[in-house]
Amino acid sequence: MHAYHFLDKVPHTKAHHTGLTMVLDKGLGLHATTDLIETAGDYIDFIKFGWGTSATATQELIIKKNKLYSSANITTYPGGTLLEVALLQNKLSEFLEESSRLGFTGIEVSDGSTVISASTRANIIKQARQAGFLIISEVGKKNPTLDHELSIKQRLTEINADLSNGADLVIIEAREAGKNIGIYDSTGNIIEKELEQLASVGIEKLIFEAPLKNQQVDLILKFGAQINLGNIATSDAISLETLRTGLRADTVGQL
Amino acid sequence: MHAYHFLDKVPHTKAHHTGLTMVLDKGLGLHATTDLIETAGDYIDFIKFGWGTSATATQELIIKKNKLYSSANITTYPGGTLLEVALLQNKLSEFLEESSRLGFTGIEVSDGSTVISASTRANIIKQARQAGFLIISEVGKKNPTLDHELSIKQRLTEINADLSNGADLVIIEAREAGKNIGIYDSTGNIIEKELEQLASVGIEKLIFEAPLKNQQVDLILKFGAQINLGNIATSDAISLETLRTGLRADTVGQL
Amino acid sequence: MHAYHFLDKVPHTKAHHTGLTMVLDKGLGLHATTDLIETAGDYIDFIKFGWGTSATATQELIIKKNKLYSSANITTYPGGTLLEVALLQNKLSEFLEESSRLGFTGIEVSDGSTVISASTRANIIKQARQAGFLIISEVGKKNPTLDHELSIKQRLTEINADLSNGADLVIIEAREAGKNIGIYDSTGNIIEKELEQLASVGIEKLIFEAPLKNQQVDLILKFGAQINLGNIATSDAISLETLRTGLRADTVGQL
Repeated sequence: MHAYHFLDKVPHTKAHHTGLTMVLDKGLGLHATTDLIETAGDYIDFIKFGWGTSATATQELIIKKNKLYSSANITTYPGGTLLEVALLQNKLSEFLEESSRLGFTGIEVSDGSTVISASTRANIIKQARQAGFLIISEVGKKNPTLDHELSIKQRLTEINADLSNGADLVIIEAREAGKNIGIYDSTGNIIEKELEQLASVGIEKLIFEAPLKNQQVDLILKFGAQINLGNIATSDAISLETLRTGLRADTVGQL
Repeated sequence: MHAYHFLDKVPHTKAHHTGLTMVLDKGLGLHATTDLIETAGDYIDFIKFGWGTSATATQELIIKKNKLYSSANITTYPGGTLLEVALLQNKLSEFLEESSRLGFTGIEVSDGSTVISASTRANIIKQARQAGFLIISEVGKKNPTLDHELSIKQRLTEINADLSNGADLVIIEAREAGKNIGIYDSTGNIIEKELEQLASVGIEKLIFEAPLKNQQVDLILKFGAQINLGNIATSDAISLETLRTGLRADTVGQL
Repeated sequence: MHAYHFLDKVPHTKAHHTGLTMVLDKGLGLHATTDLIETAGDYIDFIKFGWGTSATATQELIIKKNKLYSSANITTYPGGTLLEVALLQNKLSEFLEESSRLGFTGIEVSDGSTVISASTRANIIKQARQAGFLIISEVGKKNPTLDHELSIKQRLTEINADLSNGADLVIIEAREAGKNIGIYDSTGNIIEKELEQLASVGIEKLIFEAPLKNQQVDLILKFGAQINLGNIATSDAISLETLRTGLRADTVGQL
């Protein structure tokens, strides 16, 4: 039973099917993975093994971690950058097979670090979907200069194409740092106009990367606890849950 | 025996009854809790389970953690925000009973997120004290705008009232981030005049939240190793001890 | 076998003898130490037990940690500040004996917190070398004002003297924070002119402290994966390896 279970709070957790949370794993060891699951496993829907970090580990370690996450009903996937590297080397099929063998159940399709045509992107989504993965696509460039060149209209076109090609969810890129990229200005504050245009797609289909606490607070206060948030640091997963349920000053009594 | 025990250093640790340290636990798992105690347990007097994080965990996990901390002679308490949420729901008695059942030995009484009258605050302190808890009250608002409206005179009045009502110690609020709040300006530097007026109460009765390293250094250089410091990140507990004992560049030869 | 082993990537790891990595341990417990070794042990050459943190731990704990690191072929050493404190107390011999007893195999010789004459510095290097330690000297002052008074010419003189006195490697100081010190300006960006003059010594003899990601990226893009980097946070060791091997957006396709 939960501690202080008699307190009324905004209902949340995976069981309630509200507000997906994607946490960024930058290479946790097994003790830290176990700790994360024991403390926050009920509140995490997706774990991204950030960018190419999976390729620095042994197969054995990745398989063990994926089993642990899977036992907590968490969908895991390798960072989109690793898929992009595989694509550059014409090894998409090997990449998908290895991802499956390692126990990943999701695939992120992105073009944050490389250039991928719309038709290739569509084909990747379809191929990964046929291979049985849950598909999360990502919209945005990791280089701020290139990212600023992407108009909202282009982003919307890409989001809609990904969804119609079979993506289950679309991530709005903000990287690990969350500044000067996507819907955030150089101080990490939300650019309201861009946010609202993107949200017109339907927030239930989007995951907003929101690594900074003020971003999490602002998005929860604007859209409610049901907003999907990503690139949450492992050390902030519990804090995010308290923000979603009105148990931290920033949201107490406001949800 | 301690490594390098032959070096003279500023005597410190709980055994010497100097300079209390309160560390902020944002939801550590059991492996990390064990690590914290093994490396820094001798230097930590209080652990605050930050804001409402306790309510995201199972009773079993909180009880296990409290046993571990207790075995290292550390007093633990749930964040004041959780008491405020309970008060809003008229569940103070249940809150105190559950806190005791979970193994907490301290209670923080705050009004950082809500409005509580002076007489209610006095009654809470008395009720928690009668229930056998060590009482730590907190002065300051978590919203910077509201916090700036609190004059030093009001803070001093509140501190003195809390102490005369039975609080063992009074915390000066700075949140996890330590900027633009209480004695800190928007860059996290100390506002000297405010600090000196507060310190007139007697620093042995106060705990200054000081999450940033420059704040820890400045307070130690000003008041010595005996200053009580709080909201120390778990990863900084050892660093703080080296600052207190003259084993880090910022304080070498200056204590 | 490594996950995604079929991907071509820039060869790296200790086995390839390219690009040394020094990680800063601020007081990890045994679970976290085990996690660090399991995930990143293949990519770490040196672990520095930061400043005087070793002296806060029991001998038993330091010995256990050094055994774990040693089994992963990692050279460990206590922070230079601890040697400086021992020197102030005329206890250099005890310091070296204790370091050896505790399982350290390297010694850092610095004057970041104190003033040490060139001849004393030369003698310390020689004495530590005769005692069988690998010698890493450090050039720079931990106080920014004092550090700015050190000209490039003085730094080069000191580097060359250390190397001719028997230092194996020379660290360019940047502290844990990496701002307003050494080759970095107050925002943590590289001062190109200073970097180039220092690099003229031969980068294989230097370790650049580079705690911030942009510093790691800039140094790798400028010098290649073979640049030696230090003061890497334990949580960034895996990220650094992905930067060195072209598996993170900042370096994909650029190495």
